[in-house]
Amino acid sequence: MAPSFAINGGFPGARVTPPSVTGRFAAVYSEVQNSRIDHELPLPSVLKNPFIIVDGPQSSAAGNPEEIAKLFPKLFGQPSAALVPSDSHAPHANRKLKIGVVLSGGQAPGGHNVISGIFDYLQDLAEGSTLYGFRGGPAGIMKCKYVELTSDYIYPYRNQGGFDMIRSGRDKIETPEQFKQAEETVQKLNLDGLVVIGGDDSNTNACLLAEHFRSKNMKTRVIGCPKTIDGDLKCKEVPTSFGFDTACKIYAEMIGNVMIDARSTGKYYHFVRLMGRAASHITLECALQTHPNITIIGEEVAAKKMTLKDVTDYIVNIISKRAEDNYNYGVILIPEGLIDFIPEVQHLIAELNEILANDAVDEGGLWKKKLTDQSLKLFEFLPKAIQEQLMLERDPHGNVQVAKIETEKMLIQMVETELEKRKQQGTYKGGFRGQSHFFGYEGRCGLPTNFDSTYCYALGYGAAALLQSGKTGLISSVGNLCAPVEEWTVGGTALTSLMDVERRHGKFKPVIKKAMVELEGAPFKKFASLRDEWALKNCYISPGMH
Amino acid sequence: MAPSFAINGGFPGARVTPPSVTGRFAAVYSEVQNSRIDHELPLPSVLKNPFIIVDGPQSSAAGNPEEIAKLFPKLFGQPSAALVPSDSHAPHANRKLKIGVVLSGGQAPGGHNVISGIFDYLQDLAEGSTLYGFRGGPAGIMKCKYVELTSDYIYPYRNQGGFDMIRSGRDKIETPEQFKQAEETVQKLNLDGLVVIGGDDSNTNACLLAEHFRSKNMKTRVIGCPKTIDGDLKCKEVPTSFGFDTACKIYAEMIGNVMIDARSTGKYYHFVRLMGRAASHITLECALQTHPNITIIGEEVAAKKMTLKDVTDYIVNIISKRAEDNYNYGVILIPEGLIDFIPEVQHLIAELNEILANDAVDEGGLWKKKLTDQSLKLFEFLPKAIQEQLMLERDPHGNVQVAKIETEKMLIQMVETELEKRKQQGTYKGGFRGQSHFFGYEGRCGLPTNFDSTYCYALGYGAAALLQSGKTGLISSVGNLCAPVEEWTVGGTALTSLMDVERRHGKFKPVIKKAMVELEGAPFKKFASLRDEWALKNCYISPGMH
Repeated sequence: MAPSFAINGGFPGARVTPPSVTGRFAAVYSEVQNSRIDHELPLPSVLKNPFIIVDGPQSSAAGNPEEIAKLFPKLFGQPSAALVPSDSHAPHANRKLKIGVVLSGGQAPGGHNVISGIFDYLQDLAEGSTLYGFRGGPAGIMKCKYVELTSDYIYPYRNQGGFDMIRSGRDKIETPEQFKQAEETVQKLNLDGLVVIGGDDSNTNACLLAEHFRSKNMKTRVIGCPKTIDGDLKCKEVPTSFGFDTACKIYAEMIGNVMIDARSTGKYYHFVRLMGRAASHITLECALQTHPNITIIGEEVAAKKMTLKDVTDYIVNIISKRAEDNYNYGVILIPEGLIDFIPEVQHLIAELNEILANDAVDEGGLWKKKLTDQSLKLFEFLPKAIQEQLMLERDPHGNVQVAKIETEKMLIQMVETELEKRKQQGTYKGGFRGQSHFFGYEGRCGLPTNFDSTYCYALGYGAAALLQSGKTGLISSVGNLCAPVEEWTVGGTALTSLMDVERRHGKFKPVIKKAMVELEGAPFKKFASLRDEWALKNCYISPGMH
Repeated sequence: MAPSFAINGGFPGARVTPPSVTGRFAAVYSEVQNSRIDHELPLPSVLKNPFIIVDGPQSSAAGNPEEIAKLFPKLFGQPSAALVPSDSHAPHANRKLKIGVVLSGGQAPGGHNVISGIFDYLQDLAEGSTLYGFRGGPAGIMKCKYVELTSDYIYPYRNQGGFDMIRSGRDKIETPEQFKQAEETVQKLNLDGLVVIGGDDSNTNACLLAEHFRSKNMKTRVIGCPKTIDGDLKCKEVPTSFGFDTACKIYAEMIGNVMIDARSTGKYYHFVRLMGRAASHITLECALQTHPNITIIGEEVAAKKMTLKDVTDYIVNIISKRAEDNYNYGVILIPEGLIDFIPEVQHLIAELNEILANDAVDEGGLWKKKLTDQSLKLFEFLPKAIQEQLMLERDPHGNVQVAKIETEKMLIQMVETELEKRKQQGTYKGGFRGQSHFFGYEGRCGLPTNFDSTYCYALGYGAAALLQSGKTGLISSVGNLCAPVEEWTVGGTALTSLMDVERRHGKFKPVIKKAMVELEGAPFKKFASLRDEWALKNCYISPGMH
């Protein structure tokens, strides 16, 4: 926190404009951004000295190995690889490479450092190599839109947030034509390797590309890198996805601020919705960092088969108890994907989609008779505004847009209604005022923390090492992250070993299963052991700026 | 930014629990909070050495001096005071004091440091003094709810955000009975002085209390302190209100993140609503710190008598131009109070309040005939969701709840509709996706910046000095803030000199006029000279953590 002055109010003069940095769209950098550029990036010792790459045992798959073997005939079963110290570099060392890199899907802080890591490896250990950045995600591969990444081009993005160096995109390489396009591009650029920086889907795609290139006897190898702020792409060898650390710290700072606000005014319940549609890792991590009064974890809601009423009652019970201690305020964390975890909501939405697609909806409400009893009960339990949202907002396919439902606002209304009922019954005497928040986009593009900066740099450096040694179909894996950076391990994990299959349109599709919050895991168990105390006492922690 | 590790995912073990600090509701502090406690607070030199207090010339009022003179017969015309270096301390120095302090209204980062400043002054220059903190705002004065503030009690709050040391409240001391209660409290506690930390209303109230105590020949003096993140309490002698600097830096960090997000995905327009209902200082300051593509300043909208359609067109024109350069993304800042600045919206709401109170609203829409032509046109121009919000959500008095209208969402819908029209006319070929944000509560309780920490400490230290010298009805004034802290000036400004009157219920009421954004002032002119460039080029600055 540097000494700071406002510009406005005629005092104390305009902020000194920081020197502009070339390359980043003529961006002007703030002091903090500038200071971050030269932040040192330590490498794990294994990457600083001669190393060789050692294969592990044959691998299998996360599920349905026979199907995975059929889908990846060339790659299935290949071993994972580990970099280990050696007296001299491997024979492949110093081999010049042409490598392409692509950012796929939503941003996560640290992406630029993966690219810096690849680039620096090529500078350090493969002199004369070339690095291309595909523009705008996988579409850049298919359309052969790229830029040659030079030292001057990359430098200003070092330790900076965002994916704007080459941008990202959500396209997928799926159809035979698209695979053909990708093939043409990597051949045109004569690529030895391709690094795909992305989440579970993108890494599945990376593996399919690796298989495709291998099956055509092409020289292009493909390595994936684990990216997602949601933290749901991980396994034994990949202890975390990059961006999760930064995003959680940004959210935790804001939650901490809101906690102090709650305690200062003493009259608001802040309902904070946090990113993470598929898994509740962010919510759990933020809870562990800040100690809110109430935290809803989607995976627990699903495991206990809780209904929306159950969730509401859980919240209302704590609020009532707190009111007895004269605490009419608090902070409640909710994962973005909460309602996806509640089966009865899924049933209702499915029924509504059906009815809205086929039947007229009459003002009188006769259409409701078409709902099953359980769905009707739930529908009537929902606040009117949510009922309307469910009926009105539909996507181009006519489906209810679940993503548009503001869960935090819905819960506030349901809690309010329930408390009102209890008030009339005389079992609740407090005052309730809900305040809703959604912390989302602010966290995706923040400046990466030191952890994410260093982790990503190692992921990229390691990915380039794997490519130089001719590996393909692996995900760059940096481990032992609890230890000092020097002791981090570096290697690659067979992507096929992370895969299972899902049945879609009558076909088996390979998928990397999202890592959900494990209710038997240490983080959840720690949370579960403390939450009752957090609920009634105020054990808030405000982490401050990350 | 300390090296950082996540807890979740089983790596790298639980964060070390920071040592708990006593006093703050047994709060557990984060590393950052702990590190801030001992952050040094430099004092202006004038406060570090012997000083005397020198009166300036007689003062007048900001408007209607005759009426202010009638409302404040004892205090009107009193001079402002300045602390000036002296060979020895004034005769009143070392006088023991009993002082009360109260936090009034919404939180602003730095409030705790004002209290620390008062306390440290008493320790340093009035040994044996007592400081009481009134609990929960002005209600604490009226109900005589207080706590004696000791070194141990105050220490953990040093440089910490929030108002939770003694909490705040929004009650006002208004009726004769309430003045009587205040009188009884200060007499019971035998107070020599009272420091009121608050915004424009609270400082007006402070001055009324000062006048009341003086008129009764009571010894209790009252000094105000300028607090509000909105930045709309300021004048020549009070260059800024505390909290503004911190809040703007927190918002600017998040806006900067969103800017990088916008540039990385290339497909969203982020509409960011910022706090500041009465004045647009926060929006202007954040614009100067981050260089968004579009910024709406309420004061300009009012001065130019812009309609909602004008504002929409201004935004749509820039979006269309940007689309020609293939920029289908951007960041747009909007002040919370925007629609209060648009006269036609005020007219419509007034008419709706009238109609809703007196007439039946028919489904067929016949009631709309009761609207004036202009209001009907505006109503029809509004998106359906906003129309419904205007019709449905009413406060207990039956009035439309303007504060509940989410201006950023309203603008997104209006911009969308207008762009759709232009698309059909063939004058716009881009793609538009709006994303809404409200940055509010997160900023009110953040850790104060070094500026706010130091500024508040000086405000409190100076306020105690003024009380010791027997001054009353002044607002603590620390100036020359562009210079190094040593050179800051310290004094007090006659609150009556900031006042004007407003006619309410047939009576003149004293008010400190809110300081609005001056369209001829340096900050706005700087903004206005740059905004066209910011609109079409992308000159984003991401300030990062403050």
